[in-house]
Amino acid sequence: MTDDERAIRELVDDWMAASRAGDTAKVLSLMTDDVVFMVPGMEPFGKAEFAAASASQAGMRIDGTAAIVELQVLGDWAFVRNRLDISVTPPGAEPARQPMQRAGYTLTLLRREADGRWRLARDANLVGAKA
Amino acid sequence: MTDDERAIRELVDDWMAASRAGDTAKVLSLMTDDVVFMVPGMEPFGKAEFAAASASQAGMRIDGTAAIVELQVLGDWAFVRNRLDISVTPPGAEPARQPMQRAGYTLTLLRREADGRWRLARDANLVGAKA
Repeated sequence: MTDDERAIRELVDDWMAASRAGDTAKVLSLMTDDVVFMVPGMEPFGKAEFAAASASQAGMRIDGTAAIVELQVLGDWAFVRNRLDISVTPPGAEPARQPMQRAGYTLTLLRREADGRWRLARDANLVGAKA
Repeated sequence: MTDDERAIRELVDDWMAASRAGDTAKVLSLMTDDVVFMVPGMEPFGKAEFAAASASQAGMRIDGTAAIVELQVLGDWAFVRNRLDISVTPPGAEPARQPMQRAGYTLTLLRREADGRWRLARDANLVGAKA
């Protein structure tokens, strides 16, 4: 495994850990300023919209795993295909609501920026309700 | 516009034209042998599955447009974000069935192969029913 591959795997791990911890500032630090997120049924959106959506979902608990299916480094860019299995638990009074199970794949482009760090730059998210 | 960008735009145009014409052999020639297609709610699939699905949909009429939102060349790889607006008309007796309207975005990785031609290599397709 090359240093770049190791750094990208750490980025994926850090992203999942920060999401689990609800640490939006950390998640935002792992994406480029010009990031574009693509999900079904919505217009593509960027970092500001991601931050706003995260703020509106405060108290929501996200847990799960990302398994890297493919990783290729293309110079200062790279792409990753991930298989995600996550549970999303809405905020609310105890007893805790039933978590919603989500699963599916992502196609993600990463970019190595001037500070040498890899960050998420483009993301197509096909994760949906688990059958 | 560089030669690579021009070639990639032609690839997108050729793909749409071959799809409209129902020319599966042509479409298959525009993808790498290791292509991976990702769509919501399904496992990723490759060239053989694409060919089989196309054969099972013979007589289906596909029309529409692809508008390139972003195109970046990364050496021998490139990525494109497209906005697709398509109509799919199922086969069947006249009067023709109502076409189904589909719209949305794709994130596609292209690769320049040994023969110098760009081909589609990874594709995440977020196109869904039009609201």
